[in-house]
Amino acid sequence: MDSRFSVARIRDFIVRAMEAVGVRDTDAQIVADVLSAADLRGIDSHGIARLERFYVDPVRGGRIAADAAPTTLQRSATSISLEARNGLGHPVSVYAMREALDAAAKSGMAIATVRNSNHHGATSFYAMMALERDMIGLATTNTPHVMVPTFGREAVLGTNPISVAIPGADGDAFVLDMATSAVAYGKLELASRAGRALEPGWAVDSAGRATVDPAAALGGALLPLGGLGVDHGGHKGYGLSLLVELLTGVLAGGVFGSALPSRDDFFDPPGATSHLFIAIDVAHFRAVRDFESDVRKLLNELRESQPADGSLRVYAPGDIEAQISRERFNRGIVIDPSVLESLNRLADELEIAPLASTKNSD
Amino acid sequence: MDSRFSVARIRDFIVRAMEAVGVRDTDAQIVADVLSAADLRGIDSHGIARLERFYVDPVRGGRIAADAAPTTLQRSATSISLEARNGLGHPVSVYAMREALDAAAKSGMAIATVRNSNHHGATSFYAMMALERDMIGLATTNTPHVMVPTFGREAVLGTNPISVAIPGADGDAFVLDMATSAVAYGKLELASRAGRALEPGWAVDSAGRATVDPAAALGGALLPLGGLGVDHGGHKGYGLSLLVELLTGVLAGGVFGSALPSRDDFFDPPGATSHLFIAIDVAHFRAVRDFESDVRKLLNELRESQPADGSLRVYAPGDIEAQISRERFNRGIVIDPSVLESLNRLADELEIAPLASTKNSD
Repeated sequence: MDSRFSVARIRDFIVRAMEAVGVRDTDAQIVADVLSAADLRGIDSHGIARLERFYVDPVRGGRIAADAAPTTLQRSATSISLEARNGLGHPVSVYAMREALDAAAKSGMAIATVRNSNHHGATSFYAMMALERDMIGLATTNTPHVMVPTFGREAVLGTNPISVAIPGADGDAFVLDMATSAVAYGKLELASRAGRALEPGWAVDSAGRATVDPAAALGGALLPLGGLGVDHGGHKGYGLSLLVELLTGVLAGGVFGSALPSRDDFFDPPGATSHLFIAIDVAHFRAVRDFESDVRKLLNELRESQPADGSLRVYAPGDIEAQISRERFNRGIVIDPSVLESLNRLADELEIAPLASTKNSD
Repeated sequence: MDSRFSVARIRDFIVRAMEAVGVRDTDAQIVADVLSAADLRGIDSHGIARLERFYVDPVRGGRIAADAAPTTLQRSATSISLEARNGLGHPVSVYAMREALDAAAKSGMAIATVRNSNHHGATSFYAMMALERDMIGLATTNTPHVMVPTFGREAVLGTNPISVAIPGADGDAFVLDMATSAVAYGKLELASRAGRALEPGWAVDSAGRATVDPAAALGGALLPLGGLGVDHGGHKGYGLSLLVELLTGVLAGGVFGSALPSRDDFFDPPGATSHLFIAIDVAHFRAVRDFESDVRKLLNELRESQPADGSLRVYAPGDIEAQISRERFNRGIVIDPSVLESLNRLADELEIAPLASTKNSD
């Protein structure tokens, strides 16, 4: 029998855990906002399942500075460059995106860069902050190096996700949230545990040769979106990944290239992550109402286009996550038993109240 | 024995042809700049080979307005919205990108949108205009609908190219120039003429089913970057294509969705194309010299990374085009005999001097 948890309970547990390791309340609240939003949207890989390994452990081990306050390096009417001082990635990212949105409201558009930060959860959270301001938001971040370039064998690139959110009428929205690799690194680990072969085009072995063997792939690297070589556009995924690294680590004046963490240790060195946020104020181009009405019209054209033989329907980017959000908001979120067990153990260790299921006590 | 042509001769021929159909000299010069740059960079599909069908024919047939002058719809310190009045795509795009660069030099960043324009050649030309100003340039455009969305069977999306140029030290540069489809539409036509099977993941038939038969694909549609379904990230290519349509046609207040041309007639309706240009002034974030030095360092790390078994080397995005440019600048450009024949016929029709080879008369 599964246990269901409301977003509020998941949020509260994350706040308790982060505060227990010395994170100030305002920052703990933001970490909880970002992780619980991922759980709500069905991005389980980026939600509470990562709380211990990605955030609690590095903070209590001193690898992430629990009390870091970001400083501003440079600022203009359209730009802000932040130094995160090895703090948590979430609070500085919310601050940066908010600054970009405020600046864009005045100037039309703005960019915020952040350097020396850490993993900030699902990037879509920050892009979607633009929606309630009737703006277009873009968020991207560099990541540990687990991907080969086209024609390469060394993992010299990250999966470097890009998220863009565009508001439509009546609360509708376009939300793109994509890694620039063919698949997430976690898919290799999942296939390995299940003893399943990979799909061709996902990964290469240590010599850069195509492989469907998860063990060989884990000793090798991911392939870019578009797969091996150039026949299916692998050079495009490679180009997008490198673009992200240039617009994050290099533009922010942070860590880039071979100095970034590798698959051997995603957290070494810590504080090597850079982010980029862009806000565009639609009102500088068109009446917001007309724009949002046209966005919705175009999204609906896609949704109403004929499905392929064997497919049920066409989705607009973000539709599936929005649908899961509605379901989970109403019915609660099921947490994987192994994740729940480790969260209970964590609660014991931190001497905080465990995650209580909605069924038992709501 | 092939005939080689210098860029200057190709340029001059294009100017003569465009002027012969009533295009003013300044605009003809720009069309020639853009098309000859594509020939120089090895993007033969977007060079002089397209002169007649894409530009001369629509202008002399009255479908593109030869004498249109763009008007400004809205302008701020960071934004400019242009109405191209069904003129040629190249002059208004150069104007728009220049305006964006000028505005970014003052404000840090700027966006220009263009609506009711036409095909503007290889999008990389406009992104690369940023390089000599030590800025980051992005250019994108919507295109006729020839691609299905993920799970769809109707061609409701364009190949919507994205180009980004980032300056590096010593004239180095990152130049990404990618369609958001797995491959260009021309690859289907080439395979059809050669009687060759397609690669899986390139296209679907009219029922949205995977096909490697070029005839079935020409009656069907292209697949997004990432291929069929979601297993290889096809939804990412779909999302990028739709993103471009939202940031061009919709943001510019131009034509979008089902009102755009289809594969039945790429030029119906004319003037349905919208473009977007972004300029970012690096100096607002870091000292330009440091940034460009780091860009070059990162590009070199990629170039010097170990190649895969069976591959010779890893390229940075834009390297191959830059290498072809150097070769062709020095040794001239070979034009396909069938293209040359049609250009000679065009010269006769327009009563202009034909394209003279470098070998015969230089």
